[in-house]
Amino acid sequence: MSGCVRCGANIVYTRRYSGESLCSSCFRNSLVEKTRKTISKYHMIDYGERVGVAVSGGKDSLSLLKILQGLNQFKKNELVAISIDEGVEGYRDEAIAHAKKLTEELHVQHIIVSYKELFGFSLDQALDWKDERDISSCGFCGVFRRRAIDEAAIKADVGVVATAHNLDDYVQTFLMNLLHGDVERIGWLDPTYSDDSFPIRRVKPFMEIYEEELALFAFLSGIPFQSVSCPYMHEGLRSEVRDYLNEMETNHPGMKNVLLRSSLQVVSKLSSEAGRQSIPCTVCGNPSSSGVCSVCRMKDLVNAHVKYPK
Amino acid sequence: MSGCVRCGANIVYTRRYSGESLCSSCFRNSLVEKTRKTISKYHMIDYGERVGVAVSGGKDSLSLLKILQGLNQFKKNELVAISIDEGVEGYRDEAIAHAKKLTEELHVQHIIVSYKELFGFSLDQALDWKDERDISSCGFCGVFRRRAIDEAAIKADVGVVATAHNLDDYVQTFLMNLLHGDVERIGWLDPTYSDDSFPIRRVKPFMEIYEEELALFAFLSGIPFQSVSCPYMHEGLRSEVRDYLNEMETNHPGMKNVLLRSSLQVVSKLSSEAGRQSIPCTVCGNPSSSGVCSVCRMKDLVNAHVKYPK
Repeated sequence: MSGCVRCGANIVYTRRYSGESLCSSCFRNSLVEKTRKTISKYHMIDYGERVGVAVSGGKDSLSLLKILQGLNQFKKNELVAISIDEGVEGYRDEAIAHAKKLTEELHVQHIIVSYKELFGFSLDQALDWKDERDISSCGFCGVFRRRAIDEAAIKADVGVVATAHNLDDYVQTFLMNLLHGDVERIGWLDPTYSDDSFPIRRVKPFMEIYEEELALFAFLSGIPFQSVSCPYMHEGLRSEVRDYLNEMETNHPGMKNVLLRSSLQVVSKLSSEAGRQSIPCTVCGNPSSSGVCSVCRMKDLVNAHVKYPK
Repeated sequence: MSGCVRCGANIVYTRRYSGESLCSSCFRNSLVEKTRKTISKYHMIDYGERVGVAVSGGKDSLSLLKILQGLNQFKKNELVAISIDEGVEGYRDEAIAHAKKLTEELHVQHIIVSYKELFGFSLDQALDWKDERDISSCGFCGVFRRRAIDEAAIKADVGVVATAHNLDDYVQTFLMNLLHGDVERIGWLDPTYSDDSFPIRRVKPFMEIYEEELALFAFLSGIPFQSVSCPYMHEGLRSEVRDYLNEMETNHPGMKNVLLRSSLQVVSKLSSEAGRQSIPCTVCGNPSSSGVCSVCRMKDLVNAHVKYPK
């Protein structure tokens, strides 16, 4: 019986798109190596730079923290883990506990900021207004989460935040932007995109790795899986797009990766024109396109519609 | 009971994406008007120009011929119908008969060219080699059809050929190019795209009209539906993409149209760089990128693999 193509040991995984069969150790090493190459190819992180790592406490972000901490080239890059507590009962507490445990094990500073402290309400409270709004829960939460990450990054004194978005997330977002008509946002997907309305640079070191492979990485590395998913995750277009791309990949192994390559080519054509002129929000001073930033507009909406205990 | 929003007559169709309910006459007029606007918006046809109309004999192409002939602005544009007989037994004969009947009714010149006369084999004969090739039947047929349309257009002395590609076809092709990694071809989807490797301009006057609406137009106009579909149509990626987009449209009425708008924006960014330097094919003299055109390369493949009666 044939073994791992690299070392001959027992096979744990075969890549359908390439036929490559790997043992546990070589499989995990291949993802570490891929992460290193992605960071290098897109010049994601500067030598010596302090790096924020957005750690939700899910398998992908815990793996990201572990891999970044382990990569030799980052021995000179101090990491700070950043967790956002959106306030989703029965879901986020477990994740934050996993994040705490891993940051303690790895001796990484851990900063937690909550929607409650930043905005005055939890996500559960903000979404209590569901029937009357025409924005998905994820769209709603995303606006607040981006701001929360910026605030935490400033607190952590980092200029760049690495998030655990994987290849699946990337191509889903690309397709969703097309299906929503948000062509401007496609430019923002450029791996090296930045403009003055994004105070903190974002990078995605896992953007070239399949979600399925990251799940196996976490399992093989003994990283705890969270037992529940976000109760809001099945709302909105993303779950439809996710199912569709999974079906495509089953029928045509490697197709998500081809779509990533296409997306990157399209993104590079659009990114140069995606730059936005921002003006300070008259309410909070953060960058905005129209004089009031989307966070302040959404906060107003929530406060006008939701009755929650002060 | 409320009637057609334009004239009050009995409703035959309600547009789910807009809620607009129309009677038969106003519905048909709306498509004629949309076709006229699309042609005008993208400057598809010059005043007085001789126009080839690719008429497969399916409902869409018969409707296109009928609408173009009826549009006042084209009274000065002589139309020539062009049909390609690929040689698909039990399928193309019926379609060509429909095309003949309509061109006679409309007093439009009709030019028919066949794969057999142009290339020496029918599509049925060319595809007899299926098990050993890694290109879909549609990919195969498309290469020959494009050349056949060019040859017919030269014979018909027209500088532009209108094809009946509809909105569904357009967004399917856009997505397929992304999923195949053919980003260069996305630029070719520009409604006004041309370069020196395309000797005859192509335009798509139906590119902003849903396939479903064209089917209803043909039915209401008494245009005959072909009773069978192409026996090769379920091969390849297109049918998967078609099913997916239909499901999306059902769940989110209007989404195909949003995707069209996004596609057009992306296409416009890519078209300026899609231009190809062509050199004459050393075999047949037609434009090629590499010295031997794709038609001659495919003909060689067919001749090497297929035994067919001379």
